[in-house]
Amino acid sequence: MAKKPQKIKFPSELRMDRVGGDWVVIATGRAKRPEMFKKEKEKGKKISQKDCPFCDLDKQGEPILAFNNGKEVISANINANNNWTTIVVPNKYPAFIPYDELNEQIEGKLHKKMNAVGFHEVVITKDHNKHLAQFSIEKIKEVIDVYQKRYLMLKGKKFVNYISIFHNHGFQAGASISHPHSQIITAPLIDIDLQAALKRAKEYYEKEHECIYCVLNEWERKIKKRIVFENADFLAMCPFASKTAFEVIISPKKHFPYFEEIKEEEKWNLAEAFKKVLYKIYKGLTNPDYNFYLHTAPCDSLNYDYYHWHWTILPKTSISAGFELGTKIEISTIEPEKAAEYLRNI
Amino acid sequence: MAKKPQKIKFPSELRMDRVGGDWVVIATGRAKRPEMFKKEKEKGKKISQKDCPFCDLDKQGEPILAFNNGKEVISANINANNNWTTIVVPNKYPAFIPYDELNEQIEGKLHKKMNAVGFHEVVITKDHNKHLAQFSIEKIKEVIDVYQKRYLMLKGKKFVNYISIFHNHGFQAGASISHPHSQIITAPLIDIDLQAALKRAKEYYEKEHECIYCVLNEWERKIKKRIVFENADFLAMCPFASKTAFEVIISPKKHFPYFEEIKEEEKWNLAEAFKKVLYKIYKGLTNPDYNFYLHTAPCDSLNYDYYHWHWTILPKTSISAGFELGTKIEISTIEPEKAAEYLRNI
Repeated sequence: MAKKPQKIKFPSELRMDRVGGDWVVIATGRAKRPEMFKKEKEKGKKISQKDCPFCDLDKQGEPILAFNNGKEVISANINANNNWTTIVVPNKYPAFIPYDELNEQIEGKLHKKMNAVGFHEVVITKDHNKHLAQFSIEKIKEVIDVYQKRYLMLKGKKFVNYISIFHNHGFQAGASISHPHSQIITAPLIDIDLQAALKRAKEYYEKEHECIYCVLNEWERKIKKRIVFENADFLAMCPFASKTAFEVIISPKKHFPYFEEIKEEEKWNLAEAFKKVLYKIYKGLTNPDYNFYLHTAPCDSLNYDYYHWHWTILPKTSISAGFELGTKIEISTIEPEKAAEYLRNI
Repeated sequence: MAKKPQKIKFPSELRMDRVGGDWVVIATGRAKRPEMFKKEKEKGKKISQKDCPFCDLDKQGEPILAFNNGKEVISANINANNNWTTIVVPNKYPAFIPYDELNEQIEGKLHKKMNAVGFHEVVITKDHNKHLAQFSIEKIKEVIDVYQKRYLMLKGKKFVNYISIFHNHGFQAGASISHPHSQIITAPLIDIDLQAALKRAKEYYEKEHECIYCVLNEWERKIKKRIVFENADFLAMCPFASKTAFEVIISPKKHFPYFEEIKEEEKWNLAEAFKKVLYKIYKGLTNPDYNFYLHTAPCDSLNYDYYHWHWTILPKTSISAGFELGTKIEISTIEPEKAAEYLRNI
């Protein structure tokens, strides 16, 4: 008799909502007991430098990558307090976990799940208190160097089909540790919402023989009213259909589908754009919590030459409540034109 | 020479993200000056009963609908403190505004917008402090009566193609006023994400000749592990692909596409299901902030007999951060099976 296939218990699962079509991660690897979900009033509390897990390298183990003042250094040679300024370490409570197989399982007639195979890393900058808006352009450039370097190292790996780089600042933006850090997660799949956006960009490219983002950028540069900042390589603007008040998108002026191909000179200009925009938000909105994330072409070996990478910065100016969750229509309470004017003048 | 069409300034705008495909509302009717977005530490503060706009009927004007102890009463006859228990009033800061035309405008080559035509109402229950989980079944039944009654009154109106009924409890769930209240918003359009889900349900119905939600409910009742509560008409469960920890869906056991057709006896059983589930969440998670919202068939006069209405309850157990915003993949940190077991046993 054939052996019944063994059901493996995945430490972290991707499950599909059969009607909505979306995937969710059930991150049992970072699971808590049910009673631990009780309203934790303490959550927002700042951890002191003494107790900060990102200030104590002994708690992190050997970094995957280390930089010191703009140059890569050998990870094994660094020590807790010296000779590093930015490091990358594995996330201790990963949502995605490396594994050599991607096992799909079906529950009942309709439920599909697979193990959440991937990498989940943390990019830590040294200073416990100083956050990106307060960084020098040199320091931001180093963070971009690290993003690119890790992207290139992860890109070729098995089951790495999408790489998400993001940064959460402040408790209301989901940062559980106040020490400034970014995260890199690789996923074996692309959610249907992103797929739909990619499809729309592709269809436009095939029909009009030009990139939809290039056309949009050209329009914005012509009418100017939603521009926040501009330099030789980058355009920062509040998008026409801003999802939240003071949303800013930074994108290259020239057509570039793949973030990881960014060149040295462009990295300096991206660092400047980040610095200017984050500082304007910091100053203009008095240090609000915020998220930013990268949208770039997937790395599932298909062709995405029609795509145009960009960063989205979302200050936490509101909360998605029942209407937004139920209808998927976000409500923003300021015109992007006014938001851009305000930020531009700072 | 033909007169150039006049560009009307919309007090509240629906704008489409040309690549993402999503619609957003730029609610300039509730606009603030840019500097007012500065981190307001006071936002979460509880308003005392004395200053509560929902405790002072003079601030609200004549209600659209009023109920007193389970029976509809004439709105004009009610007074501030007496003879009402639940009322409906227009939202003073509406995101959608009634108008007799739906004007579409194009900006540049690609940007589409229209005025956000619709109704935005508030359902207020009298007690300033008592919230739904603490209500008696009779009181919850009255709120459901009001939801249904307003749904039926709004349904036939021009440009009312989708009706969203939702409830935000607590500041972290987006409730800016602590006095318990729900909201009803009508939209002239259906966002692409909802459209995609409707399409998937329809395809399944046409192919399998049964409702996908009915099949899912049958499976859940068979395996039992994700059931939270059940009575003669309703099933409450933590869904297989829960978007957040302790998400609960309440749906009718029989196939019903249109919420507004709910019958008297079913309303009592829905009130019981709400009471039980909200109380379990209140007790088990120590009064967390939460949102709940209705998903029912659109009312744009198309046929949605394949659909199956339901309520989704989302306790605010986490924050959608950079990864979730960027990839649209939500992360939940407890298996719905464990969450359901925990809630079931309360």
